[in-house]
Amino acid sequence: MAKVFDAAEVAKHNTPDSCWVILYGKVYDVTDFLSEHPGGSKIILKLAGKDATEEYDPIHPPGILEENLKPEAMLGTVNPDTLPKAQAEPVPSSSEVTEGPPPMESLLNMDDIEQVATKNVSKKAWAYYYSASDDKISKRFNTEVYRSIILRPRVFIDCTKCDLETKLLGRRLGMPIYVSPAAMARLGHPAGEAGIAEACRSFGAMQIISNNASMTPEQIVKDAAPNQVFGWQIYVQIDRKKSEAMLARINKLKQIKFIVLTLDAPVPGKREDDERGNTVGASAPVPSATAAADSAEDETSRINRSSGGVGKQLFAGTDPSLTWKETLPWLAERTNLPIILKGLQTHEDAYIASLHTPQVKGIILSNHGGRALDTAPPAVHTLMEIRKYCPEVFDRLEVWVDGGIRRGTDVVKALCLGAKAVGIGRPALWGLGAGGVEGVKRTLQILADESKTCMRLLGVETVDDLGPQHINTRLLEQQIYNGPSGLESIRNVFRAKL
Amino acid sequence: MAKVFDAAEVAKHNTPDSCWVILYGKVYDVTDFLSEHPGGSKIILKLAGKDATEEYDPIHPPGILEENLKPEAMLGTVNPDTLPKAQAEPVPSSSEVTEGPPPMESLLNMDDIEQVATKNVSKKAWAYYYSASDDKISKRFNTEVYRSIILRPRVFIDCTKCDLETKLLGRRLGMPIYVSPAAMARLGHPAGEAGIAEACRSFGAMQIISNNASMTPEQIVKDAAPNQVFGWQIYVQIDRKKSEAMLARINKLKQIKFIVLTLDAPVPGKREDDERGNTVGASAPVPSATAAADSAEDETSRINRSSGGVGKQLFAGTDPSLTWKETLPWLAERTNLPIILKGLQTHEDAYIASLHTPQVKGIILSNHGGRALDTAPPAVHTLMEIRKYCPEVFDRLEVWVDGGIRRGTDVVKALCLGAKAVGIGRPALWGLGAGGVEGVKRTLQILADESKTCMRLLGVETVDDLGPQHINTRLLEQQIYNGPSGLESIRNVFRAKL
Amino acid sequence: MAKVFDAAEVAKHNTPDSCWVILYGKVYDVTDFLSEHPGGSKIILKLAGKDATEEYDPIHPPGILEENLKPEAMLGTVNPDTLPKAQAEPVPSSSEVTEGPPPMESLLNMDDIEQVATKNVSKKAWAYYYSASDDKISKRFNTEVYRSIILRPRVFIDCTKCDLETKLLGRRLGMPIYVSPAAMARLGHPAGEAGIAEACRSFGAMQIISNNASMTPEQIVKDAAPNQVFGWQIYVQIDRKKSEAMLARINKLKQIKFIVLTLDAPVPGKREDDERGNTVGASAPVPSATAAADSAEDETSRINRSSGGVGKQLFAGTDPSLTWKETLPWLAERTNLPIILKGLQTHEDAYIASLHTPQVKGIILSNHGGRALDTAPPAVHTLMEIRKYCPEVFDRLEVWVDGGIRRGTDVVKALCLGAKAVGIGRPALWGLGAGGVEGVKRTLQILADESKTCMRLLGVETVDDLGPQHINTRLLEQQIYNGPSGLESIRNVFRAKL
Amino acid sequence: MAKVFDAAEVAKHNTPDSCWVILYGKVYDVTDFLSEHPGGSKIILKLAGKDATEEYDPIHPPGILEENLKPEAMLGTVNPDTLPKAQAEPVPSSSEVTEGPPPMESLLNMDDIEQVATKNVSKKAWAYYYSASDDKISKRFNTEVYRSIILRPRVFIDCTKCDLETKLLGRRLGMPIYVSPAAMARLGHPAGEAGIAEACRSFGAMQIISNNASMTPEQIVKDAAPNQVFGWQIYVQIDRKKSEAMLARINKLKQIKFIVLTLDAPVPGKREDDERGNTVGASAPVPSATAAADSAEDETSRINRSSGGVGKQLFAGTDPSLTWKETLPWLAERTNLPIILKGLQTHEDAYIASLHTPQVKGIILSNHGGRALDTAPPAVHTLMEIRKYCPEVFDRLEVWVDGGIRRGTDVVKALCLGAKAVGIGRPALWGLGAGGVEGVKRTLQILADESKTCMRLLGVETVDDLGPQHINTRLLEQQIYNGPSGLESIRNVFRAKL
Repeated sequence: MAKVFDAAEVAKHNTPDSCWVILYGKVYDVTDFLSEHPGGSKIILKLAGKDATEEYDPIHPPGILEENLKPEAMLGTVNPDTLPKAQAEPVPSSSEVTEGPPPMESLLNMDDIEQVATKNVSKKAWAYYYSASDDKISKRFNTEVYRSIILRPRVFIDCTKCDLETKLLGRRLGMPIYVSPAAMARLGHPAGEAGIAEACRSFGAMQIISNNASMTPEQIVKDAAPNQVFGWQIYVQIDRKKSEAMLARINKLKQIKFIVLTLDAPVPGKREDDERGNTVGASAPVPSATAAADSAEDETSRINRSSGGVGKQLFAGTDPSLTWKETLPWLAERTNLPIILKGLQTHEDAYIASLHTPQVKGIILSNHGGRALDTAPPAVHTLMEIRKYCPEVFDRLEVWVDGGIRRGTDVVKALCLGAKAVGIGRPALWGLGAGGVEGVKRTLQILADESKTCMRLLGVETVDDLGPQHINTRLLEQQIYNGPSGLESIRNVFRAKL
Repeated sequence: MAKVFDAAEVAKHNTPDSCWVILYGKVYDVTDFLSEHPGGSKIILKLAGKDATEEYDPIHPPGILEENLKPEAMLGTVNPDTLPKAQAEPVPSSSEVTEGPPPMESLLNMDDIEQVATKNVSKKAWAYYYSASDDKISKRFNTEVYRSIILRPRVFIDCTKCDLETKLLGRRLGMPIYVSPAAMARLGHPAGEAGIAEACRSFGAMQIISNNASMTPEQIVKDAAPNQVFGWQIYVQIDRKKSEAMLARINKLKQIKFIVLTLDAPVPGKREDDERGNTVGASAPVPSATAAADSAEDETSRINRSSGGVGKQLFAGTDPSLTWKETLPWLAERTNLPIILKGLQTHEDAYIASLHTPQVKGIILSNHGGRALDTAPPAVHTLMEIRKYCPEVFDRLEVWVDGGIRRGTDVVKALCLGAKAVGIGRPALWGLGAGGVEGVKRTLQILADESKTCMRLLGVETVDDLGPQHINTRLLEQQIYNGPSGLESIRNVFRAKL
Repeated sequence: MAKVFDAAEVAKHNTPDSCWVILYGKVYDVTDFLSEHPGGSKIILKLAGKDATEEYDPIHPPGILEENLKPEAMLGTVNPDTLPKAQAEPVPSSSEVTEGPPPMESLLNMDDIEQVATKNVSKKAWAYYYSASDDKISKRFNTEVYRSIILRPRVFIDCTKCDLETKLLGRRLGMPIYVSPAAMARLGHPAGEAGIAEACRSFGAMQIISNNASMTPEQIVKDAAPNQVFGWQIYVQIDRKKSEAMLARINKLKQIKFIVLTLDAPVPGKREDDERGNTVGASAPVPSATAAADSAEDETSRINRSSGGVGKQLFAGTDPSLTWKETLPWLAERTNLPIILKGLQTHEDAYIASLHTPQVKGIILSNHGGRALDTAPPAVHTLMEIRKYCPEVFDRLEVWVDGGIRRGTDVVKALCLGAKAVGIGRPALWGLGAGGVEGVKRTLQILADESKTCMRLLGVETVDDLGPQHINTRLLEQQIYNGPSGLESIRNVFRAKL
Repeated sequence: MAKVFDAAEVAKHNTPDSCWVILYGKVYDVTDFLSEHPGGSKIILKLAGKDATEEYDPIHPPGILEENLKPEAMLGTVNPDTLPKAQAEPVPSSSEVTEGPPPMESLLNMDDIEQVATKNVSKKAWAYYYSASDDKISKRFNTEVYRSIILRPRVFIDCTKCDLETKLLGRRLGMPIYVSPAAMARLGHPAGEAGIAEACRSFGAMQIISNNASMTPEQIVKDAAPNQVFGWQIYVQIDRKKSEAMLARINKLKQIKFIVLTLDAPVPGKREDDERGNTVGASAPVPSATAAADSAEDETSRINRSSGGVGKQLFAGTDPSLTWKETLPWLAERTNLPIILKGLQTHEDAYIASLHTPQVKGIILSNHGGRALDTAPPAVHTLMEIRKYCPEVFDRLEVWVDGGIRRGTDVVKALCLGAKAVGIGRPALWGLGAGGVEGVKRTLQILADESKTCMRLLGVETVDDLGPQHINTRLLEQQIYNGPSGLESIRNVFRAKL
């Protein structure tokens, strides 16, 4: 006759070394079976030492237990009186519910993370991160444009191996996803930009430090891994001395490998959420004091006159007079680092950039996250415009993109179109706001996992193997610029110069 | 003088053999008229023995009664005092309202059925059935794509006869609609996959048994009709011995007529509803126990590391390394059954499959119900891609499709585009969840009725007569892949091999 | 010194013969000015005898009063104490609010009328009128398709004159809008189909009487005007004797000028609202009685088996076996009236019809108000298909359309595309439901007014002058069928026959 | 040892001449630093005399304070007991909340302004301004069409200078944005059309005075600046004498530089909101009085018979019989001012206008704000139609547009397509309703600021430099009329005439 166990005795066997479960009133030792379970050992270990019948029954064919276990694995029966009574799930006490953000691993995607961050951070931080110009048409379009690209999964390809590693500017990186230069990280979380750096270190991901970071570059790179890669973003100041001093300082930081010159925002866009957000709880205006200050302003600073949001304040002092002819040589003289131009939005400008090698090593197609000019094209449009009018650009320099990335499939689609790397701005800041360093790690982890799943289902092993054959952009093609191209006149100008 | 009847007397005549009704206070014997009533006899029989005036009056021309009945049919008048008083409709008691699902015949379409099932089944079952990958874009698109196809009804064609019968793999079937391999039917209803089989038997419909069924294949086919057709779906396991043992077992089941090799999900998609649904009410994680298990996992199993939902658990052990070169011969050696490849999503792969006849007898165009890769193309896209690039595929093997079918018009549209059969996954499971065997029957009945109505209104008698002339796909054509085709290089590879 | 009047004295002068108003405390006699007022006399008469200052002031330039009136028109001042005190608008008592439908002239468009009718009529009537097949995609599309056509208004054209008069089948009519054959008008209002006829008489509008009218044809045409035009719609019955008897009866009614043979619904569509609506408050099913009846049904009647809604009941007995070859000659032998074929939805069928002149005098492009086959094309699609493939059809017979008309602009657009007349089904029934005969008149009045305004703004005087140059159908062109045309084989068949 | 200050002492230093702030418990004199602050002086002055730590900390890198201030700027520490306690923000008393419209500078865009105006103005005014014809499809489309145009920002272009100045009809103006002729301004605000004129004066903006203004032209132009530009809009009256008298009066007003002849509304559109709005609170109809008046009406006035809204009343007396042949010479004989034709909506009419130089100096592409014919094309469509069929029109006369402008980007897009000026109707009226003269100024300021930001980000300095290369209209091109053009027959007619 079978032995009868108390539930308490069974409950002790709840480890990989000795794992018992109760099924239909019988006690089984499934320790040896753990490694063979088609559903993995973990799901059994969750129920180790307990009555697993309710979980087990509806998903296993009747009789399958006997087929898979040796007879001696059935140890006996359980004394039903010793089993805990089924209880209504206890209502969590309100303190449990309201205390702090949820565990990061419970956040499954970028929307989850943004939602949690929205609750966590101050109104001002939310407004600064969330805002985009005018009606946020470009911001939305940045994301939607990826959704209109259809993937072309291939079958019967071994997808055991899959690797996100890539090389940017000749440097090996863990993934083609980098953190875009986004200002004011400490608004969202005290860990700030250094916290983002710490998260990037875990993934071998690149980070571009904002000119308007809330920490100094030195503080941000302090704990970097030996081969961790940073870029530094410059907004050239009207007072060039300040920019030159800053460049001299950056040149000394060996972790910073390149300079990003931002071009898509020579004047600030109109970010209404930011402007409204910044006045929440603000003290009353001080007209007498500001009037005096205003009267001293010249034309350029008058551009920025409106009290504005955080975004507009950061723009004060930024030089709107940059040109290919003057600014690029000025910059190239003051640093030996490779120069990346950020904010190109037409094939014409991408083409001009490609005529400025070797100083210019790369370009970032970007509409500034929809924060500069509303109804500006998403980076995907510009990628496709370059492919259509002057694909040779891709051979001459590296093309990166940012804006609208919310899924690993978005990352993969950009790479298929010829991008070498994909930047995330808001997702990193929302990650920081949601959970500090762990939040940024979760952000990167999710995007990396999703990107790898996507590559596997496309039958692709490395990012270099991704190409236009993996995507259907038919719907988008009907939106790409078809008007007069400035290429011919550009070629004439530059031919004349050479 | 006319005879006066009590209402109770009239009420006795409520059968086809003696059918009286009261109209405008008079009593008529309409027994002989039953078969002549243009509205059918049933509608009269519903009112047999009662005062039908309120129902009759607004839809019949005045005087029509006298025109149609013989004078002697007017038997007399009713004593108005004996008629029951009109009453406010009684409010159903709450017990009546909440008790059990509604009668299956009151469910008119797939949405009704899903709605009832959603209420009936456990959270976990709902989450597993409902979920799709990422943002469920492909899942929605699967259905919407059918709505953008416009039908072209023809007139003045005798549509008395209309027949859904068809032949698949040389076997006669009652309809071109089959049940796709969907796992875990017992999660939704104890009748499980055997219940689906019972429903299919009534309609001569084919069923493909999932590799992850919650009943054994033997149990599922046990009560099959003599010429009932089953397929069996295989997910090849890393441990090939397991798969080989399973194949050997399947080869012995004479009701199983073919093997479906699933290719569209070598790694699991990210089904967030499922992942969330599965943690509802779940016990706390057991990190100490799982940590040990994790540490032993290799690269492949790490793919599946996340605790995940039901879907991810089922994937454990599945081999992601399948290839045309190795896997297909391995399978062909182990079974004499025809092989169907499931999950093709490009014309290239369909073409390659067509080069692997005679082992491969058919392909299923499928994006796994939107559960594998989000923004993957719906089967309709792939059908149209094949028509555009390599229509010869349709001659070489049978092309089946699944995903998104919610109406008989959807079934017919897929057939017009060249599909030989159309699979339903979720609708069968929702049917099971809504009403067990009767629910699945209702599902199949609705789709069959709708399909026949559609064919009749198109002026088509048999499914073989359906063709592209019956549909307008103009809007869709603008979405079909137009990029570089891999066909040329495929031909080169295979020419070299031969 | 100016005379001082009591308000009561002023109040007496409130007619076109003696019209005084108070403005800024002064009393003016504006009787002579009435006919000169640029805003019309009516607006002044509304304020006659009262203080008009509040209405007058914000819309008239200061000083304009003195400019326009002779000095003697200023009669004096008003004694301010005699003016009524401004009062809060009295809250209407609940009885006023809930009693009956609003005055028809307060209903401005088809939506208003449908809304009022929806409140007025029984659930059953609403369900029968409102319902369409499956997901009502074609029903919605019928209306939306008109909205995607852009009008091309011309300027500097004298549009004083504008005339809706037209000729159909050689008969002069007041407007190109007719009432489509819609069954069961008395479900919505006791005035029934005769009420619709009465409304049509006021406008010289044509009416097609449904085979399933809730009044006899004789009752409907009884009070017709001498040159009022009716058509009669036939659903051919399986029992041809019944149809032949009916035709004989129709042939005798001199007001009925043509026969409409409905072809788009050989079997009933699936109108779920109707099926659900019909069971509201229905008595319990009587399975014992109906079972016996069902068992006697043959294949054809089984098509209609479901208990169904009003729509399905009406279908019982309808013959689904009609053909060009048999039915048309049968019909032509039994009537000398012109035959109109209703429900054509492809250019092929329109073309075949055009080969059957002179018996066939016209065709109605219709998808049966979206009630037969869901995702069938709207009449506008078929119009454009004919224009594209076989425009000669327009020369051979009259092309009418119905479905989705909600605005006068819709009427005009259909005429621009080549339709000779435009039918309304639901709008007439909603009109009847909203206000009986007056409601139908309001419906016709609104559509006529809107149509004329549209024609005037296009610079067009008569309906014959409307053409494709008045509309931009660019968006629609991208949706029109582009697949294999059946024209060639049709021509071969008919050439062989001749 | 550092000096200790009371907070009250620090609070005194809150001006640009002596500006102290408290940071991390220390007191700093930042007077000298004000002009160097990268974020501008204003943001510091807002916090002058106060504890700025909470605002300062999260957006400044730690240590940056010490880097930027001289050591002596640190004056000492603050006595923490003297700092005001942090308080919950006081709830504004209800009187503060409900009193009057918000300050105009808090309104950031046209939607904000419309929202405030909607609350401020009477139901009748709202209904008149807001309404458009039928289903308001053209009204919505007018705005949406701009959103579907994608901008093409260029980089590395000095955008310090940016100028909205332009020339219209040879006259210099401050901006290419003008106020369209909109009637009844005093309905919305007592400042009326003269208030709009006052606002326009501040910006050098042009104003077109409506024929139906609620002030006389003399009153409106009374306080005009010396070179302020006005146009006057004429609706030709059936009684030509009235129009001739009015023209004679206008010819005498030297501020009025041109005549606008409105052509897009020979009969009134159906503005249902206006018709409903106008009956709100209206007195009961006076049928006896109006019946008499109606009976005297002729065909033309019967067009306008419906009691209608404000819009319809204004139409009474307007002549619907205008023609190129009669009306234009009549007008040219009665004024020497340049004539602008308003309301052209086809390339044909634009082309005919271009054959009527030199009397006709310009045309306004307009669908009357969607108020005349619903589903009429937006001005952008007509612009593109002219570019496609007869671009020479742009050389022969000035092309202005109106309708749907809500953003500076909309203004710029219209200019890129060839428009010389852009009119705003509702935005000016909403501005007036929201805040009188200040509201209109705010409207113009916002649009001017947004337009300049847009031009800067496109890399364009003057409005003349804007062109089709700055926009991507690919999506729109697929909507532009493609049907039969009337150009050939127009050329034949005019060739014959010359």
